[in-house]
Amino acid sequence: MPRSISRGSAMNAPHEFAAATAAVDTAAVEPLPRSMKLYVEGSRPDIRVPMRAISQDDTPASMGAEPNPPVFVYDTSGPYTDPAANIDIRKGLAPLRSQWISERGDTELMDGPSSQYGRDRLADTRLDELRFDLTRAPRRARAGANVTQMHYARRGIITPEMEFIAIRENLRRAEYIASLKAAGPTGERMAELLGRQHRGESFGAAIPTEITPEFVRSEVARGRAIIPANINHPETEPMIIGRNFLVKINANIGNSAVSSSIGEEVEKMTWSIRWGGDTVMDLSTGKHIHETREWIVRNSPVPIGTVPVYQALEKVNGKAEDLTWEIFRDTLIEQAEQGVDYFTIHAGVRLPFIPMTARRMTGIVSRGGSIMAKWCLAHHRESFLYERFEDICEIMKAYDVSFSLGDGLRPGSIYDANDEAQLAELKTLGELTQIAWKHDVQVMIEGPGHVPMQLIKENMDLQLRDCHEAPFYTLGPLTTDIAPGYDHITSAIGAAQIGWYGTAMLCYVTPKEHLGLPNKKDVKDGIMAYKIAAHAADLAKGHPGAQIRDNALSKARFEFRWADQFNLGLDPDTAKDFHDETLPKDSMKTAHFCSMCGPHFCSMKITQDVRDYAEKTGVSAEAALKQGMNEKAIEFVRKGSEIYGKV
Amino acid sequence: MPRSISRGSAMNAPHEFAAATAAVDTAAVEPLPRSMKLYVEGSRPDIRVPMRAISQDDTPASMGAEPNPPVFVYDTSGPYTDPAANIDIRKGLAPLRSQWISERGDTELMDGPSSQYGRDRLADTRLDELRFDLTRAPRRARAGANVTQMHYARRGIITPEMEFIAIRENLRRAEYIASLKAAGPTGERMAELLGRQHRGESFGAAIPTEITPEFVRSEVARGRAIIPANINHPETEPMIIGRNFLVKINANIGNSAVSSSIGEEVEKMTWSIRWGGDTVMDLSTGKHIHETREWIVRNSPVPIGTVPVYQALEKVNGKAEDLTWEIFRDTLIEQAEQGVDYFTIHAGVRLPFIPMTARRMTGIVSRGGSIMAKWCLAHHRESFLYERFEDICEIMKAYDVSFSLGDGLRPGSIYDANDEAQLAELKTLGELTQIAWKHDVQVMIEGPGHVPMQLIKENMDLQLRDCHEAPFYTLGPLTTDIAPGYDHITSAIGAAQIGWYGTAMLCYVTPKEHLGLPNKKDVKDGIMAYKIAAHAADLAKGHPGAQIRDNALSKARFEFRWADQFNLGLDPDTAKDFHDETLPKDSMKTAHFCSMCGPHFCSMKITQDVRDYAEKTGVSAEAALKQGMNEKAIEFVRKGSEIYGKV
Repeated sequence: MPRSISRGSAMNAPHEFAAATAAVDTAAVEPLPRSMKLYVEGSRPDIRVPMRAISQDDTPASMGAEPNPPVFVYDTSGPYTDPAANIDIRKGLAPLRSQWISERGDTELMDGPSSQYGRDRLADTRLDELRFDLTRAPRRARAGANVTQMHYARRGIITPEMEFIAIRENLRRAEYIASLKAAGPTGERMAELLGRQHRGESFGAAIPTEITPEFVRSEVARGRAIIPANINHPETEPMIIGRNFLVKINANIGNSAVSSSIGEEVEKMTWSIRWGGDTVMDLSTGKHIHETREWIVRNSPVPIGTVPVYQALEKVNGKAEDLTWEIFRDTLIEQAEQGVDYFTIHAGVRLPFIPMTARRMTGIVSRGGSIMAKWCLAHHRESFLYERFEDICEIMKAYDVSFSLGDGLRPGSIYDANDEAQLAELKTLGELTQIAWKHDVQVMIEGPGHVPMQLIKENMDLQLRDCHEAPFYTLGPLTTDIAPGYDHITSAIGAAQIGWYGTAMLCYVTPKEHLGLPNKKDVKDGIMAYKIAAHAADLAKGHPGAQIRDNALSKARFEFRWADQFNLGLDPDTAKDFHDETLPKDSMKTAHFCSMCGPHFCSMKITQDVRDYAEKTGVSAEAALKQGMNEKAIEFVRKGSEIYGKV
Repeated sequence: MPRSISRGSAMNAPHEFAAATAAVDTAAVEPLPRSMKLYVEGSRPDIRVPMRAISQDDTPASMGAEPNPPVFVYDTSGPYTDPAANIDIRKGLAPLRSQWISERGDTELMDGPSSQYGRDRLADTRLDELRFDLTRAPRRARAGANVTQMHYARRGIITPEMEFIAIRENLRRAEYIASLKAAGPTGERMAELLGRQHRGESFGAAIPTEITPEFVRSEVARGRAIIPANINHPETEPMIIGRNFLVKINANIGNSAVSSSIGEEVEKMTWSIRWGGDTVMDLSTGKHIHETREWIVRNSPVPIGTVPVYQALEKVNGKAEDLTWEIFRDTLIEQAEQGVDYFTIHAGVRLPFIPMTARRMTGIVSRGGSIMAKWCLAHHRESFLYERFEDICEIMKAYDVSFSLGDGLRPGSIYDANDEAQLAELKTLGELTQIAWKHDVQVMIEGPGHVPMQLIKENMDLQLRDCHEAPFYTLGPLTTDIAPGYDHITSAIGAAQIGWYGTAMLCYVTPKEHLGLPNKKDVKDGIMAYKIAAHAADLAKGHPGAQIRDNALSKARFEFRWADQFNLGLDPDTAKDFHDETLPKDSMKTAHFCSMCGPHFCSMKITQDVRDYAEKTGVSAEAALKQGMNEKAIEFVRKGSEIYGKV
């Protein structure tokens, strides 16, 4: 393909980075099959909302010869899948929000990083070759200003970010339905089907038929949704996390003391968003955390989250008891000035809750939670995160970093689910939410963990109540502990349910959970399981556009449009590979049968006969049957025999 | 390993069979790691109930040095994982139930098959080399006798099969708890934890703390559970399907016109049961269906199900309109005399329901359903399966074949879920259930298909009501249509939920669903997803023993007993392989850290410190904190620094 993809191969970088980037697979940034990147323009030309249009074949002549309009799907992959884009990870992505941010006039450009650590790293010439070459200066709120999306929302301002999101969430549904209607009678029928009323329990979700910029604003103002969009991450394509929007998923990446390098982590990010990751958390714990993060943020079109205490711990050589507020504060500023969009902060791990975990099956399993527990016990003091929470809010609102209030006391086993420690922390997170909201700082709440199915709803309901409907962001939950190696599945079961009940974002779990660090295959497997869970939840909540894709895929399946069936799916590559395994020939991609029944008999084909029969009789099939049209039956036998004799 | 496993390598078989069996992997029939096969004896010496005991390491000295008693798990794998058993697939398994069946005195041995087809195949010398060499004569009920387990149950008889099942379902829970208590203080605590009351909604499941033979009898008599156990399949190890027992899973195998051979199908069966398949359905549609089935049944310790109309269709060269009651009847007898334990029969696909499918998104997707629809339309007549239902019951009760009433009108897409056609058929299945019960014939009901989450409960509730609590046996359901290649996951989400709501057996879906025929990897992936769903449902329903395995695994995880964590899981091989990928060295299997956090910091380790601290203070941690023991805090810092300095 004639496009410029420069992924560091020529850069003069240390060996670990060069080695990793040399392995980058350029095929992984090609558009998906039959998919076209398009941008929907908003009220101003620089609001250009990305979508993916999946084109389809016409319905075969034997089934009606009708055109099938392109299906629009939410596109998290950024410019990487845009053939018109020049990708150069050494330069980073275009800062599409810069103008919006600067024209608000409430921020100032700084000379350079204001954190001590940021300044020290910049001054360290040994890091020159490893460092992303950012020429842009960091930005922060002018003295006394509050630059959060929540602050604007509460003052009645609809930001370009909010308009962007409204367009993005609507997925050109109205246009799609119009093109369906124009396609012909079946299209018209499908359009009518889409209007069918939602049946079943939606657990309080109230998703409007059309998402308006005003609706986005009101949900953000209410605290029921957040827009993670640090002013120092202008490359991000705005997205929203809230239970009256599409359910989102997060993918965790990050190197550790044991393995992986910067280049691999950047590649995991691009790989994650290719398959639908809505946000990415960088959980790096190894060396060069600061530099790794810079590369990731500069190349990420999705919000980036971190757990700042991980890096703070590195700064004190892994000794939790040596952590101080000053070091933590400096870390927050350091990361906020790099553009991290949300921080996991375990401010709910309070001293009095720690002993509640002593009789657990699996104690404290959250890494951040146990760091803070260790600190509290060592100093026999209340957590500095809890005591300094308002100070933290001051930092958050100067850069619009959102809180992801960490569940440091989440259960690590079915046995510990919904216990005293977990629920005590949850209540505290609710109190902290109200403090953050006092500062107009955006908040979401992290959730478990390991929870058996029958306790998931209770957990969700308590979160809604105790945390005042701030968006819930859950890890799974895993619904059983007995399947190491398959925890993407044990947890997708719980994730789908809690998404239905009201969780706004699902943090993926890979098959390597509890066992090792995910490689690219694991990342994709985790994302697929979670895209499924999120979409199942969207359907169950009655999201007005969600079923478009199911319907289109099912119609393609019914009409033996194999390529369309693959391409409308979450993973066209795997679907096609699986079909190839049994029926490898290209001709089989147009075959009107599948490998299950073979060419001589197919239930889908017979159904078509039923339908043809019902139509050919000229009256409704019910009426035909009632009239006892025996001659038609005889004719059917003759016709049917001919048809099947020829296949 | 010095054991005799002879899997046809020396047999003089046609090339297709020999070629397939030559590929058999003997490692696949070795016991799982640290697992011992044991047999629990019942009230008579020939009731020997198989279980798998997973032995564990002691808790490390630093964490209490306590023994961890073996965990007993349900074992579907039959003699294949018993090192003491001689496996020879040419001879088949030992007929462990023969004595029980013959001593009831209500059956007679026949000269040979009584079906025309069975006699024809036996007389065809061209098949000699392909045929399983069964020297035993088939059996049927004496004239006027009824040999179903339901018939015995309703007369108050507890059969050896029922006693076998009671022992099997209890999983030596009482013995395990006793050994836990003997192990030491943590064991005692764990035993106490197991007694904790179930919290959350169990949707009417009423599983007793101890399953007695009388409870088994009463559930079978009530029709709420079935024991699929054809008198011509004496090799089967009795098992039960009902919502007050462990949730079971079925694995489908079978060759088709397109691919695979007899040997491969036998191997898929042994592979399925190794990983936990509770029953196996042979859905073969290719040539040699009869002979393939014989090999499978003779070597299967689990019940075998079939869809007889598939074979009947082959007998009329694939022309549905040429099917007759006589051909179908002969097929039922043929298969009943081979030992098939349950028949899927689509007797609910009635003529008036067929036109209800004409405006569906995906019409009729059940193969059996569409065969019958085609027949009904061609003849413009009511289904002969419906009209001859009482005749079918007469055959079923002469061999104790259970009905699996097929859902021929199940939805093939989210759009079609719970529609008029599906629910009309469901009601009819309920009527047929009552007719079968009049004959004391055992019945389960097949269910969908594709259903979005918010409609699953409705489906289950309607089934319970319309089918009078006959066990539900569902395919998935798939909760979205958009993930071809991942339908084991889209459906495991639905399967877990419907299992919780009351489904007794879950029919697996493999990643190849909609795309191709499953290979061994797909079969295993499907089984794993469904073992997870079934177990998640057992936990949610409050099955009294289910959480033993979760607790044991979580304790092993917490104590860094890596090998135990792998071995207690559903798939020890994959868990170990995944761990090896990041930490390949053997020494890492005893490492007190994982790859996520590396050796210098670990949340599990810190939790242990929290626990040690709480214990060392000599008073409860709560009290310690209240007393404000600052000197302890100082001591902790010193001790902690030492500990972490050394790691």
